[in-house]
Amino acid sequence: MRIYDIIKKKRDGGELSTDEINYFITNYTNGNIPDYQISALLMAIYFNKMNKRETLDLTKAMVNSGDKVDLSGIKGLKVDKHSTGGVGDTVTLILGPMIAACDVPFVKMSGRGLGHTGGTLDKLESIDGFKVELTNEEFLRNSNNINISICSQSANITPADKKLYSLRDVTATVENLSLIASSIMSKKLAIGSDAIILDVKVGSGAFMKSIDEAISLAKEMVNIGTGYRRETIALVTNMDEPLGNAIGNALEIKEAIETLKGNGPRDLYKLCLQLGSKLLVLAKRVENGESGKKLLEEKINSGEAFNKLIELVKYQDGDVNMIRNPQLLPKAKILIEVKSQKEGYIKQLNAEEVGKCALKLGSGRETMDSIIDLSAGIVLKKKVDDKVKIGETLAEIHTNNLEKGKEVEQNLGDIFKIGEKNKELKKLIYGIVTKDGIQIY
Amino acid sequence: MRIYDIIKKKRDGGELSTDEINYFITNYTNGNIPDYQISALLMAIYFNKMNKRETLDLTKAMVNSGDKVDLSGIKGLKVDKHSTGGVGDTVTLILGPMIAACDVPFVKMSGRGLGHTGGTLDKLESIDGFKVELTNEEFLRNSNNINISICSQSANITPADKKLYSLRDVTATVENLSLIASSIMSKKLAIGSDAIILDVKVGSGAFMKSIDEAISLAKEMVNIGTGYRRETIALVTNMDEPLGNAIGNALEIKEAIETLKGNGPRDLYKLCLQLGSKLLVLAKRVENGESGKKLLEEKINSGEAFNKLIELVKYQDGDVNMIRNPQLLPKAKILIEVKSQKEGYIKQLNAEEVGKCALKLGSGRETMDSIIDLSAGIVLKKKVDDKVKIGETLAEIHTNNLEKGKEVEQNLGDIFKIGEKNKELKKLIYGIVTKDGIQIY
Repeated sequence: MRIYDIIKKKRDGGELSTDEINYFITNYTNGNIPDYQISALLMAIYFNKMNKRETLDLTKAMVNSGDKVDLSGIKGLKVDKHSTGGVGDTVTLILGPMIAACDVPFVKMSGRGLGHTGGTLDKLESIDGFKVELTNEEFLRNSNNINISICSQSANITPADKKLYSLRDVTATVENLSLIASSIMSKKLAIGSDAIILDVKVGSGAFMKSIDEAISLAKEMVNIGTGYRRETIALVTNMDEPLGNAIGNALEIKEAIETLKGNGPRDLYKLCLQLGSKLLVLAKRVENGESGKKLLEEKINSGEAFNKLIELVKYQDGDVNMIRNPQLLPKAKILIEVKSQKEGYIKQLNAEEVGKCALKLGSGRETMDSIIDLSAGIVLKKKVDDKVKIGETLAEIHTNNLEKGKEVEQNLGDIFKIGEKNKELKKLIYGIVTKDGIQIY
Repeated sequence: MRIYDIIKKKRDGGELSTDEINYFITNYTNGNIPDYQISALLMAIYFNKMNKRETLDLTKAMVNSGDKVDLSGIKGLKVDKHSTGGVGDTVTLILGPMIAACDVPFVKMSGRGLGHTGGTLDKLESIDGFKVELTNEEFLRNSNNINISICSQSANITPADKKLYSLRDVTATVENLSLIASSIMSKKLAIGSDAIILDVKVGSGAFMKSIDEAISLAKEMVNIGTGYRRETIALVTNMDEPLGNAIGNALEIKEAIETLKGNGPRDLYKLCLQLGSKLLVLAKRVENGESGKKLLEEKINSGEAFNKLIELVKYQDGDVNMIRNPQLLPKAKILIEVKSQKEGYIKQLNAEEVGKCALKLGSGRETMDSIIDLSAGIVLKKKVDDKVKIGETLAEIHTNNLEKGKEVEQNLGDIFKIGEKNKELKKLIYGIVTKDGIQIY
């Protein structure tokens, strides 16, 4: 087998065989095939696409390129959740404890990356002492004892994906559904959970800008999961404005705590209920979404979901006082309130622009070397469709840098678009994709 | 400017600006842009093509990537010829002396490459002492004194093309007309001749397999030459069967000598007359093709064209006795005659297959390290449309290796397709492409 022939076959519109896909993934991962041949192949894939079978084979080859995490030591049906990323996405920190409180094991391994705010691991590190690096034994023990564990990925999960992604990133070959879907799913599938729920974000603050694109990606990923014999469903959800109100690491932890106590932002709570109830069905904990929702609401109201967060923090050596009293979480020195200059309704609140403001304050990483300011960020006081009067607070800026804070104050003033009431109310969830088809909400 | 944006622009169907093309060629040549980004760009170019302007800019950028050969020290209008390569293509060694005998300077710099037989330089090295490496002074002096010089390329002509071609060769990005045309033309244009004639081969023994493809390539190259303000025309010629009768280095020198004496194979002589008469028009030596042909025939009949070959060999330190007495040229130890087992007409004689036989005998290079057997090769005694009887000789095999010779005897027996007379007589020239349009013959 020669990589040249594989490139040429895909260039000419051919379907790559399982062997050909395994060959190029294995030999690229171990360094036998140079980058310049794979980047040509990736561009050919960009143009001529991969079909369902090829995409599944690519995903399998990437899963097999590295270590797999065996979860069979954890009792019960294990569930995992993945979001394609957005602004203010605190879902994992709320959904995890909610699910675990229902006696369903929620096991999550996260990576770190670039973004407007840190990832789940960074957010958790706002809590003093919280340990994200767990040994395999700790991970299994925690999952068995308290049904929840959130930790960092082993270094050698899907090395093929890491290498391929780095190459795609610099060769303009990221934007292909098969490549995106296989990259995401390989990381999920390398971890042996029984059910996976995907939150595919769409809108200004998401990678997918159109609902059609997002649905296509959701289908591609559900196909892969199903082909891998994992129960997989995907929700396509709105990321035109930030999710919830907090954007920033410690601020999002605080928001998660409030939500678990039943006092969180409506959109964030509603999405957690939707995702959670589907997960409980996948995990065979309830018969249908309605009873799942009811159960989850009970767990919130009884305080069991909040207690699960306390347990999680305790088991991973974090300071539970910070959870009981969120005032103890890292706090920025300066608070600036952004006031409205106009009266009317919030028509638009571009999530990506808000995200960039948070990044400017130091909430996220611009490069892998950036140091995150865990206390910095933004809390939105008004969101799309809300009414606002002149002088009312639109948002709070939390910062340790007055100059940056003033700059962001200016920016946010422009980002809030105020005017006539929107004709249609915003939607939180656009649809759901399962192995049986698509349901548009 | 960022190479990422250039890749993305071409991937999305955009037209690259002159600056963008210069940027990527300059920075790839000097090592600032890695192979893996350029191979992705090449694949994007493969799919989305380049327009006329982009192709011309790419060619210019490649010309400017290295040294240019200034021919202004040579009096008169200088002409150059290029063939896209075929089997038994001895044209340069005949056309050069013919043109020079008409007092038009014929200046040719050749490279060496892989192929069924050696290139022009290898063929000339069949002549004892022949020096292909000339200093700039020798090259100019010879061209001025005797109107002809054939030598090897300076090491630093179009380094961008060398680097790009090596990359295309291993990434399945060779087959794009803009890339092929700019690669060929950049090497021609780096040498400051006034007129260029291109012989675009089409058929089993050529890179272009269909007449349409060949005409497209011819148009692309004429566009580039014209855009560069060089008089450029292209003939599209038949390479279904080998050109002439000899395939092999010393054998082709012998055939060139015979042709210059007026005793060469009809197809080879006819093509030289066609190419030559067009060149004389381009060089403004004659008014039209008809008078060009007449002049060239005179130079053959008078012996002046043959004497020009003698002069060329003398000026480049070769042994002229070998030209006067071709029996002195390198000669293989074994001669095998391939006899016909059938009676009928030669219906087909696949040039590529014959070429492979010559390669097997050692006439060409399989890798850049291969050592050529200058004496080895094949002389065809029958060609397409010829009548043949049982027991008549189809071809002679010249070899120093009996085993290989026997193998090739077997092969050639199969390659000569004998049967009913073809309904249409073979064509030598399919058409001509000039800046004014295409004329189909």
